Amino acid sequence: MLVPEEGIKVLSDEQVATLHETAMRICEEIGLDVLHDDARKLLAEAGLKVEEERVYFDRGFLMEQVAKSPARFTLLARDPAKSHEVGGPTPLWMNVGGPPFASDLEGGRRSGSLADHDTLVKLTHAAAVLNCVQTGAVEAMELDVATRHMDMEYSTIRWSDEPYATYGTSGPKARDGIAMAAIVHGGRGAIERAPGLIGIVNSNSPLVWDFKMVDALFAWAEANQAIAVTPFLLAGATAPVSVTGGLAQQVAECLTGVAMAQLVRPGAPCLYGSFFTAIDMRSGAPAFGTPESIYGVLAGGQLARHYGLPYRGGGGLASSNTVDAQAAAETTLMLWATVLSRADVVLHAAGWLEGGLTASFEKFALDVELLEQFATTMRGIGFSEEELAFDALKEVGPGGLYLASEHTMAHFKEWLTMSPLFTTPDFAAWEAMGSPDTRQRAFQRWRDLLASYEDPGVDEAVDQELRAFMDRRKREPVDPED
Amino acid sequence: MLVPEEGIKVLSDEQVATLHETAMRICEEIGLDVLHDDARKLLAEAGLKVEEERVYFDRGFLMEQVAKSPARFTLLARDPAKSHEVGGPTPLWMNVGGPPFASDLEGGRRSGSLADHDTLVKLTHAAAVLNCVQTGAVEAMELDVATRHMDMEYSTIRWSDEPYATYGTSGPKARDGIAMAAIVHGGRGAIERAPGLIGIVNSNSPLVWDFKMVDALFAWAEANQAIAVTPFLLAGATAPVSVTGGLAQQVAECLTGVAMAQLVRPGAPCLYGSFFTAIDMRSGAPAFGTPESIYGVLAGGQLARHYGLPYRGGGGLASSNTVDAQAAAETTLMLWATVLSRADVVLHAAGWLEGGLTASFEKFALDVELLEQFATTMRGIGFSEEELAFDALKEVGPGGLYLASEHTMAHFKEWLTMSPLFTTPDFAAWEAMGSPDTRQRAFQRWRDLLASYEDPGVDEAVDQELRAFMDRRKREPVDPED
Repeated sequence: MLVPEEGIKVLSDEQVATLHETAMRICEEIGLDVLHDDARKLLAEAGLKVEEERVYFDRGFLMEQVAKSPARFTLLARDPAKSHEVGGPTPLWMNVGGPPFASDLEGGRRSGSLADHDTLVKLTHAAAVLNCVQTGAVEAMELDVATRHMDMEYSTIRWSDEPYATYGTSGPKARDGIAMAAIVHGGRGAIERAPGLIGIVNSNSPLVWDFKMVDALFAWAEANQAIAVTPFLLAGATAPVSVTGGLAQQVAECLTGVAMAQLVRPGAPCLYGSFFTAIDMRSGAPAFGTPESIYGVLAGGQLARHYGLPYRGGGGLASSNTVDAQAAAETTLMLWATVLSRADVVLHAAGWLEGGLTASFEKFALDVELLEQFATTMRGIGFSEEELAFDALKEVGPGGLYLASEHTMAHFKEWLTMSPLFTTPDFAAWEAMGSPDTRQRAFQRWRDLLASYEDPGVDEAVDQELRAFMDRRKREPVDPED
Repeated sequence: MLVPEEGIKVLSDEQVATLHETAMRICEEIGLDVLHDDARKLLAEAGLKVEEERVYFDRGFLMEQVAKSPARFTLLARDPAKSHEVGGPTPLWMNVGGPPFASDLEGGRRSGSLADHDTLVKLTHAAAVLNCVQTGAVEAMELDVATRHMDMEYSTIRWSDEPYATYGTSGPKARDGIAMAAIVHGGRGAIERAPGLIGIVNSNSPLVWDFKMVDALFAWAEANQAIAVTPFLLAGATAPVSVTGGLAQQVAECLTGVAMAQLVRPGAPCLYGSFFTAIDMRSGAPAFGTPESIYGVLAGGQLARHYGLPYRGGGGLASSNTVDAQAAAETTLMLWATVLSRADVVLHAAGWLEGGLTASFEKFALDVELLEQFATTMRGIGFSEEELAFDALKEVGPGGLYLASEHTMAHFKEWLTMSPLFTTPDFAAWEAMGSPDTRQRAFQRWRDLLASYEDPGVDEAVDQELRAFMDRRKREPVDPED
């Protein structure tokens, strides 16, 4: 067991208690702005002090609500065999989401398109180590911004039968996603029994819940969908410049979000989400792989468990503009932290580049390789007689060689990692090949992965209903609140 | 605290017991070849069964000897303030050692030289995060192979006043190193009280102790110098193809080495050393960063603590031929494991490339950057009122911005990591700079580091004595056993 079930503890019990106390003081004494009338009404009815847009959440209320959110729940997949126990022994690993740009070695950096989105969904589906798709792998920039959330959601549903995270950046968009999930799973009743999607809500840090996000949160909670409440915290910009202060703020924003969801529908499955790093003060851009971001991932996991919630955190995050040593170092630093935190849900595990502005296909191949290696590492080593190898040691004996031994030949394919991406040709052979670096091999790797993709197909009636729904919604006027 | 004091436990107590039992059976039933007459004589006198070159070590003898080796000891430095408690709270981090090639972006890959060795010693001395020098940072290939160990040792002693690991790959070379350390520290008596160097002994795996290594081990043990007993194990070549079998072999080889040292001089400070990975069966070259190598580092640390010995393990090891994403991923995977293993002594922490064939100056800069980040991460986060930041949160309030706040301005330089190597310019600015990748920035980085080097100077009498010693030894005939 590489990591204990409860993850690595980076905070003492006393430090957790101090963060909790500070967060409660933030909620009670500073309060949060909730820019959603229905939400404020509901919170006032629940007995909270509300002054104009400011809501003061008291700790008794918060902890009572948070306790209603389950520690585990089943997330449905289109292929029932791929439905997943969130909060169970294995995490959900997803592709990147949100970038406006796509990039690959041949096509260069470009505006994202639906074709790129389809490709990223197919790559995610084809990569065995990824078991969940995130809609919005790249923005389909050529499509109408008012309706493209549906085209991307359809791309996710059509090209993969794995569980998925929905797009929903507003109430109406969230409701479209819910309607599509209901079609996939045979009606709203089915997805109300077990969620058919994960929605992500970000508070507008510091300490603001804006209308769109609360509206999406309400939509998902009403439908009993999974909600990852994830403050997007950048120390020095949207959070104090100290990790400690940022964590206290994270607790305040997470728990108030979870509490609102529980108020709408007690038992709605919520996750404690952490997206926490600092900005690079030289550029103002978020920095990943830094000690601050590593602490953000690790402490977030510990806090999630403290509050009895599944944990969304970490990812293959990198700041670098290209798939170079910096990108790999940042990503590996973050993924190690993610694994050590025992995150339950990992967005942006593959393909994230340039601080999330670009979905890179070569980065995707690199990340999948790293995730495969972590998965093998997490499985641990075996202690069978054959693995203890006393007989092999005796047979080969002092001064022998294991290269061609029977024991080696029988087991090397199963027991040794031979990375298709990380290779070790000798220097002269490598020079003769034109000194290819990782990017060039990664280009080949994602193309091989894409070639291995098998279309899971889709039920024809479901497909027609999805298309009919989208056609109808595209003819309707755009919601003015959206 | 990122990592518990006893490191991460990847093996259960039962698994440790199983490895121990298997290792004891290897020592008792298979035995090891000891190709050194004096050693076999000593071992026979201690009551062990010896048949020709094969020695059968029984567990009672082994555990009795191992118990004599201290869990902590002080390693002297030329600057007494830099003397280090090995086995104490902080590890020793060293530069790469052993490569025949040096490489940098401007000079390309070339045969190592004494000038390159001097530069690597200076870089190690200048890098605050490295606190120990390894002689043989690169082989001074232009010098006489019979005597260049002294030139390289002099380079280490002259250009740094930190503790160091000696070159010694044979008895006579080890004795030269001891003589030089004695000169540095004012006589053999001084370094017999506390060791002036660390020697590395590698068994000739599987299960052979060859003459040269045992002879070096004898020399160091007689002089009470520190000895890192480190089997060089490659699963599928010099060890069974299973990690578990390799670990059992590692225990057998380590403990027999430690036992021999204790027989020579009870209490001689020994380390449990792990250099364990698998070969890439496609090329026969060692692969680093793989799950097998990560387990090798982590399990090695747990076994060292089980036997009450300080741990030498891990490093910034990579297989890649160039400083690309593969090199950074492999290195970061290995360094995370090294940190988690709580290694006490880390060789090859900076500059290792191409499976150890090349000392790369750009890789050195990359590794130093990673080590700095790990050091910051390991320090953890503070919980002062200022760091909890409640007042800052109250002042900025919901919807505010921390960018220009007083709290941010007062603390960002101290609390946020701004990597000189990992930068985040926006894409357009980065393109305008010519799209520099990490290698190009690393080239600038090591040159800046070198420019910051300050010569610690050396006592003139010591310097003259060292030179006189080397001159005399270079005139003597080469030892035929060397």
